[in-house]
Amino acid sequence: MTSQNQLFETLNPPQRLLMGPGPINAYPRVHQAISQSLIGQYDPVMTGYMNQVQALYRGVFETQNQQTMLIDGTARAGIEAVLVSVLKPGDKVLVPVIGRFGHLLCEIAQRVGAEVRTIDIPWGEVCPPEKVEAEVKAFQPKLLATVQGDTSTTMNQPLEALGEICHRHGVLFYCDATASIAGNELKADAWHLDAVSAGLQKCLGGPSGSAPVTLSDRCAALINQRKHVEAGIRAAHHIQGAEAMIQSNYFDLAMVMDYWGPERLNHHTEATSMLYAARECARIYLEEGAEQVIARHRQAGGAMAAGLQAMGLSLFGDQQHRMNNVVGVSIPGEVDGDTVRLELLNRFGIEIGTSFGPLHGKIWRIGTMGYNARQECVLTTLAALEAMLLKHKARIEPGVAVTAAMEYFG
Amino acid sequence: MTSQNQLFETLNPPQRLLMGPGPINAYPRVHQAISQSLIGQYDPVMTGYMNQVQALYRGVFETQNQQTMLIDGTARAGIEAVLVSVLKPGDKVLVPVIGRFGHLLCEIAQRVGAEVRTIDIPWGEVCPPEKVEAEVKAFQPKLLATVQGDTSTTMNQPLEALGEICHRHGVLFYCDATASIAGNELKADAWHLDAVSAGLQKCLGGPSGSAPVTLSDRCAALINQRKHVEAGIRAAHHIQGAEAMIQSNYFDLAMVMDYWGPERLNHHTEATSMLYAARECARIYLEEGAEQVIARHRQAGGAMAAGLQAMGLSLFGDQQHRMNNVVGVSIPGEVDGDTVRLELLNRFGIEIGTSFGPLHGKIWRIGTMGYNARQECVLTTLAALEAMLLKHKARIEPGVAVTAAMEYFG
Repeated sequence: MTSQNQLFETLNPPQRLLMGPGPINAYPRVHQAISQSLIGQYDPVMTGYMNQVQALYRGVFETQNQQTMLIDGTARAGIEAVLVSVLKPGDKVLVPVIGRFGHLLCEIAQRVGAEVRTIDIPWGEVCPPEKVEAEVKAFQPKLLATVQGDTSTTMNQPLEALGEICHRHGVLFYCDATASIAGNELKADAWHLDAVSAGLQKCLGGPSGSAPVTLSDRCAALINQRKHVEAGIRAAHHIQGAEAMIQSNYFDLAMVMDYWGPERLNHHTEATSMLYAARECARIYLEEGAEQVIARHRQAGGAMAAGLQAMGLSLFGDQQHRMNNVVGVSIPGEVDGDTVRLELLNRFGIEIGTSFGPLHGKIWRIGTMGYNARQECVLTTLAALEAMLLKHKARIEPGVAVTAAMEYFG
Repeated sequence: MTSQNQLFETLNPPQRLLMGPGPINAYPRVHQAISQSLIGQYDPVMTGYMNQVQALYRGVFETQNQQTMLIDGTARAGIEAVLVSVLKPGDKVLVPVIGRFGHLLCEIAQRVGAEVRTIDIPWGEVCPPEKVEAEVKAFQPKLLATVQGDTSTTMNQPLEALGEICHRHGVLFYCDATASIAGNELKADAWHLDAVSAGLQKCLGGPSGSAPVTLSDRCAALINQRKHVEAGIRAAHHIQGAEAMIQSNYFDLAMVMDYWGPERLNHHTEATSMLYAARECARIYLEEGAEQVIARHRQAGGAMAAGLQAMGLSLFGDQQHRMNNVVGVSIPGEVDGDTVRLELLNRFGIEIGTSFGPLHGKIWRIGTMGYNARQECVLTTLAALEAMLLKHKARIEPGVAVTAAMEYFG
C-alpha cells in the first residue's frame, strides 16, 4: 500500500508565458483537441483522422508526398526514424553543422553506422551553398542531412540552393525542420527535399511528443527495399525487401508506412491524444494560412529584436539568417543570466531560454512562436525583462524597448 | 493556400465503449490532466513533476529502483529502449514466445544484432519454468526477455519462478508488462526483474504514447558502461563509457537516465502532456490501491468470462493462466466475426477486438481494463453482444449471459 502523501497533489501547473526556444504555450484549441475521448486504432473514425492528418501535413510541408505521417515520439524520434531508415552501415552522409542540432544529426548517423562528414560552420553563421557543393563533389554522399532552424544559434539555414545542388548531383536531401517549420518558409517539393521531420512544440503551437515526417516517393521506395514485416503478423502476400533490415523496429519507416497505408498493418498503437493535438496544430496553421502565420512570426520576432536592441543589448549571430521565431541576445556583463531568468519566471511567470555549449552564460534565447507570436507577448516580455535588468543594475537604456517594439508592429 | 474544405471538421470523436484488448477509454481524470497548460522542461515545477512521476511509477512497478522513468513513445518504444540499451551485437537473449508479442521481442533483439533463442509455446499456453531453466543452462543467455501478458493469446506468463531462475543463474531478467500491468500482479523487486517496460493504454487507463520503464541498479550500471554524451552538450566532467555505444540515440537509456537525473542533461524535449497523463494514471492506480484495482480487474474479467460461457461460447486458452483483463472467445461458426464486430460498433458504439495471425477469424478478444473494468461495462457489452449474435442467428443460449455476470458480481 502506498501512503496518501506519496500520491502528490492534483496536477495544477502554473500559467507561464513561455518565451524561450520551445516548448511554448500551445494554442488553446490544441488543449481542447488533446483532451477528447479516445477511440480504437482501427475504428473507421480513427483511420479517417489518420488520413486527414496525412493530408493536413502535406499542406504544412508543402508537398504532394503520399508518405506523410506522424512518428509517435518527440522531434528527435522523427530525426532518428528518417536516418535509421535511409542509412545503412557504411553509407556516406554529409552534414553542415551550424549548431548543436547539427551535431545531433551526426551522432544519430554515426550510431546507425554511417560514414559522416561534416562542414563545420562557426556558431552564428549558416553554411554557404558553395561549401556544400564542393563537399558533395569530393565526398559523394548518399544523403545530405541538415537542420533548417538550429535553435542553439538561432540561425536558419537557407535550403533552396542546397536542394538544387542535391537534385543536380543525385544526392538525397533531408532536413530537420522542428524549430523552423510554421514560422519560416519551407517548401519540401519545390526545394527538392526527400525527407523532412518536425515537431509540434515550436511554431506549430502544440506539445512535444509527436513528430510529423514526409518522404518523397524516391525516398520511400528506397526505404521499402529494406522492408521486413514482423513475424507474428506476416502473411504470404508480404514481400520482404531485398536489402538489409532497418536496425530499429520502432523507427522502421517501411513498417510505419504500412501502418498508415491502406493495409493498416499493425505496428505500434497510435498515440491517439497526440494525434488529436497534431491534427489541430495543422488545422490552425492552414486555416490562418501559411503565409500569414509566417508573416506573423517575422513581425513578432522582428519586434522583439527591435525592442532588445533599443534597450542597448546586442543580438547574436548573422541577423540576415536569423530564424523569425527566436533571437539570441547578449547577457549584459553586470548580471548573472540564470539569476535574471529565474527571477523573471518567479515574479512575472515568463520563461526565456538559456543556451548550450559555447554560448552558455553568454546569450539568452527569446522565442516568439506559435500562439506566442503575438504583440501582447512581445511587449509583456520586453517590459518584464527591462524591469528585471534595471533591478539588477544592468546598464541598459530604460523606457524605450516597448515603444520600439510597438512602433515595429505599427 | 489550402482551401477550406481540406481543413476538415472540428475534432469530435464519437463516444465509444472500448472493450477490446486496448486501447481503452481513459479515466476521465486523465483527460483533465492531459489538457493542462504546458510549462518549460526545466521549470522547477516541471522537474518536480518528473520526480513525482518517478516516485509514482516505483509504486506501480513495486520497486525501489532509482531508475524509473518514462520513454516518450508508445509501449514498443519502451521495449526497444530496454533491449537496445542492454544488448550489444552478439549478446545472447532467451525469449519464451507465448504469442505475437514474444515474436516482437525477438525481432527487436535481432535488429539490435543479438543472438536470439526462443522457447516456442503453443498459443493459449504459458511457458513452464522447467523449460526456461533447461534453456538457461544450455544457452547461457545474458538476458531472459519475456512478455507478461500477451494480448494476442490472452495468456499471463507467471514470472516469479522465472525471476528466481534468473537470479540463481546470474541472468538479467526483462519483461514487457504493457498489457498486464495494473490489472495483474507484478512485483519487480520481489520477482528479481532487472527491467520492466509498460504502456498507459491498457489497465492504467490512459492514452497510448508514454512508456514507463524501470531498471534495477545492476541493469542501470551495465547500461552506463555504454554511456556516450552527445557532442554539442558534452562537458569535461562527462565520463564516456568504456563499452560500445548504444546504437540508438533516442532509446539510449544512459542518456535518458541523465535527463531524468540530477544533472537534467538535455536529451529530448519531454512530452509534457503525455507526462501529465502518465502521472494521473499512476495516481489513480495508487490511490485506489494496487490490490483493489487488480481485484476489480479480476472480478470484471471473471464476470465477462462467465457471461460468455453462459451464452454457450467457449473461451480460448488455458483459463488458469488467462490475464484478468482480456478474454478470448470463439466466434460461433454461424457468424462472420468482423461483420458482428462492425455492427456492434455501429449500433451500440461498443468495440471488441479481432485477433492476429493463427487466431484471426477464430476468436474475438474482449477486454475489461482500467476505467472499463466495471460492472456496467461488462453487462452492457454482454447484452449488446447477445443481441447481435441473435440477430445474426448464432446458436447461443439467449437470456442468461447478463444474469450470469450479475451473479458473478454478487
